Amino acid sequence: VADLLDQLRGLVGAAHVLTGADAAPFLTDWRKRFTGKAHAVVRPASAQQVADVVKLCAHTSTPIVPQGGNTGLVGGATPDASGNAIVLSLARMNKIRGIDAANNTLIAEAGCVLQTVQEAAAAQGRLFPLSLAAEGSATIGGNLSTNAGGTQVLRYGNARELCLGLEVVTPRGELWDGLTGLRKNNTGYDLRDLFIGAEGTLGIITAACVKLFPLPRAQVTALAALNNVEDAVTLLGLAQAHCGPTLTGFELFSEACLKLVEKHFSDHRSPFGARHPQYVLLELSDHESEAHAQQLLESTMQTALERGLAQDAVIAQSQAQSRALWELREHISEAQALEGKNIKHDISVPISRIAAFVQETDALLQQHFAGMRMVTFGHLGDGNLHYNVSPPEYGSRNIDAAFEVKMAEKAHEYCADTSETLFLSQQSAIYQCVHDQVRKHAGSISAEHGIGQLKREELLRYKSEVELRLMRVIKLALDPLNIMNPGKVL
Amino acid sequence: VADLLDQLRGLVGAAHVLTGADAAPFLTDWRKRFTGKAHAVVRPASAQQVADVVKLCAHTSTPIVPQGGNTGLVGGATPDASGNAIVLSLARMNKIRGIDAANNTLIAEAGCVLQTVQEAAAAQGRLFPLSLAAEGSATIGGNLSTNAGGTQVLRYGNARELCLGLEVVTPRGELWDGLTGLRKNNTGYDLRDLFIGAEGTLGIITAACVKLFPLPRAQVTALAALNNVEDAVTLLGLAQAHCGPTLTGFELFSEACLKLVEKHFSDHRSPFGARHPQYVLLELSDHESEAHAQQLLESTMQTALERGLAQDAVIAQSQAQSRALWELREHISEAQALEGKNIKHDISVPISRIAAFVQETDALLQQHFAGMRMVTFGHLGDGNLHYNVSPPEYGSRNIDAAFEVKMAEKAHEYCADTSETLFLSQQSAIYQCVHDQVRKHAGSISAEHGIGQLKREELLRYKSEVELRLMRVIKLALDPLNIMNPGKVL
Repeated sequence: VADLLDQLRGLVGAAHVLTGADAAPFLTDWRKRFTGKAHAVVRPASAQQVADVVKLCAHTSTPIVPQGGNTGLVGGATPDASGNAIVLSLARMNKIRGIDAANNTLIAEAGCVLQTVQEAAAAQGRLFPLSLAAEGSATIGGNLSTNAGGTQVLRYGNARELCLGLEVVTPRGELWDGLTGLRKNNTGYDLRDLFIGAEGTLGIITAACVKLFPLPRAQVTALAALNNVEDAVTLLGLAQAHCGPTLTGFELFSEACLKLVEKHFSDHRSPFGARHPQYVLLELSDHESEAHAQQLLESTMQTALERGLAQDAVIAQSQAQSRALWELREHISEAQALEGKNIKHDISVPISRIAAFVQETDALLQQHFAGMRMVTFGHLGDGNLHYNVSPPEYGSRNIDAAFEVKMAEKAHEYCADTSETLFLSQQSAIYQCVHDQVRKHAGSISAEHGIGQLKREELLRYKSEVELRLMRVIKLALDPLNIMNPGKVL
Repeated sequence: VADLLDQLRGLVGAAHVLTGADAAPFLTDWRKRFTGKAHAVVRPASAQQVADVVKLCAHTSTPIVPQGGNTGLVGGATPDASGNAIVLSLARMNKIRGIDAANNTLIAEAGCVLQTVQEAAAAQGRLFPLSLAAEGSATIGGNLSTNAGGTQVLRYGNARELCLGLEVVTPRGELWDGLTGLRKNNTGYDLRDLFIGAEGTLGIITAACVKLFPLPRAQVTALAALNNVEDAVTLLGLAQAHCGPTLTGFELFSEACLKLVEKHFSDHRSPFGARHPQYVLLELSDHESEAHAQQLLESTMQTALERGLAQDAVIAQSQAQSRALWELREHISEAQALEGKNIKHDISVPISRIAAFVQETDALLQQHFAGMRMVTFGHLGDGNLHYNVSPPEYGSRNIDAAFEVKMAEKAHEYCADTSETLFLSQQSAIYQCVHDQVRKHAGSISAEHGIGQLKREELLRYKSEVELRLMRVIKLALDPLNIMNPGKVL
């Protein structure tokens, strides 16, 4: 081990091989659900240094855990407890290598923070549309490795659709230059999309060429109050027919979400006089003018009110009002976290089945885990819900007796306080209930967060044998030594 | 062999195992550049029958050449001369399995003709935007296996971006059900995109779930006359900034293209009084109204004229006028074919380099292959040109003397008339000249047609060793017996 560390120091410089307390922040995930060990955290400064480190690791059969901004939600960038691995942080590879405005492309190194990429594009009058809560610290390499989604997928697609080319270090330590900025290139197998979403298990993305778009002139937001999820789905179809690709956001959240935001953030309040079961936030991005966008949104909302799809609606009259409406949506996760630990489901189902999914699954959970509070919100336009569960409120707990016993048996495995322990001990039972429903409705158990270590067993439960075999065959072919992020995904 | 044919007849029915004259149409490609042999043409009726046939072929090490509408341009669906293979035609698998309008998805079997898919979507008020010259006979399976492009890629992407899920028979004869209709699904490796564009060398696509879009209310077309390609690139940026995603088509063609169309199709004439070096066809697809689209196109063209980017412009005032402008563009390939054999380059380069590419490469070709006529047109918005070469006109031939000698030496290899023979004997030299330029400008030697057998040697010349190794490793892992379309791509 001392020898390995010496060699790593030789490759990247002693200052960039972290151990002990310096390494600690890299060994726990953002949600503090997973903590691992590692020989060291290694911080190469170039793709060539990444290749050199990987070659050394291949030679010594040392597992490598690639890490970007460490904002993942499934423990994909956290090493296991064995301590045999190194964490390879891409954080120092944070240069924008270039922008080609006429080609609408930008080349960024993997360690570039997403917001930096957005800002570099905006400085040239261009939009890089990937946008998500962690954009101030998540890196583009991590975004691509997990095929990140976010709030503008409806119009622009996931990270996958926003990437034209990659530079990748293979598990052998070869450097593949696939950094093309072409919209069309049909010359052989699609290696790019194999590395995207592979969570670092097939190689290490060191740079990417991403798509840019002309900056829209105006963005205008509306909030609609609805009776139920079914109306929200109908409203989506109406808005798409009226607004076409101008519709860039369509987010759903429930009254429970809004109440949580109002409880924990007193600055953020419902704009409506009355309370409603569901809310939809719509965003238009317009290349003509703010007036044109407002007019289009007004006529769409007018139709929705006339048809009884919306019970009430407000249309932002300024950027500040648009911001305020978005903040209701954006504070939900944080409000739920302030309320205590929760169990997240990052699911998707076909949009046509989303109303039935919510209705049936809400009922099932109340039946088997009485008192649980549903905090359901997300990207309805993509069929993607964060179908999150918070524990029953203190004093109103009314949990099934058999589960109470089971939870008590498991309590010693946890170190948190009792109520949190009891709640989290139900995680796998709740997972199974929700994910069985997802399967029934032809959905996905991980819409945008990936598998990592959190959902690895779930993956084995729900994937077909054929698909698992194909995945294993590809993993074995590209990484025969199994050094690339072992224990993740597969 | 008799035994193999008997077993195939047992699997799909005697009427669907074609030999002799019945098989002949399947053994020559559409352009009549390649002819091969096969034990038989096998026409299964279901994914299960495809799986059964593949299992039998795996057992007997019989190569399989999958074929859709046989409209490919690179010989990817034509067997080699050995006669050891079977051609597996997907033509009988031509059902639309279902449309989910609320989810904006459609499931089609591989043998569905592209136009049938478009029409099924339109009947539900939806758009399936993949559109290309061969859409009346090309199949969706072939479109996906070659990652087809076409005229609306600018807005909607290639076939790859239009596909959400696949059903595939693997080289082992397993049936993989990946027919998801989800916009977001981050559960493991992206097998879908590995099969898309693999030209049948990794498995056989038997069905696909594709994306639909709301039908736009109006499509309006304009034709602009320009001084040069550079102005066309600047006009593209202007149109994208003004029109955003409303801009769904941006096609370039040269004066030489227009003259060819006018020569061979007397119904189709330039709408301009004067002649111009280049023309750009713009199409807007609008969700508001025809009037709105016309107004947007008018203001865009007005700006282009004021800035001197366009020398003249016409905007269609009716669907019939839009159609007439499109037909100028759509008749170029046919007009060039009527002029005689030609050498096609299906290239892409970054849009920012396209003007320099055309200028430099035109000059190089005139220097080395004097008199050759450039027939350059294509999807400028995607950086994709059909940079085609026709032979010098009779009587004005002025070919480099050294080449004349070389051509004469090769003439006996061909059976066409002498002038055609001489011309086609230069194909590989012209390929190399153009493709070296493509490499210099960071482009692709096959933007949308694929590799097949036509460009296999070119692929080996221009791909990096690392990329070729990765492709071979994947091929070997998925198809260890090398029975899936051998001799294509790799």
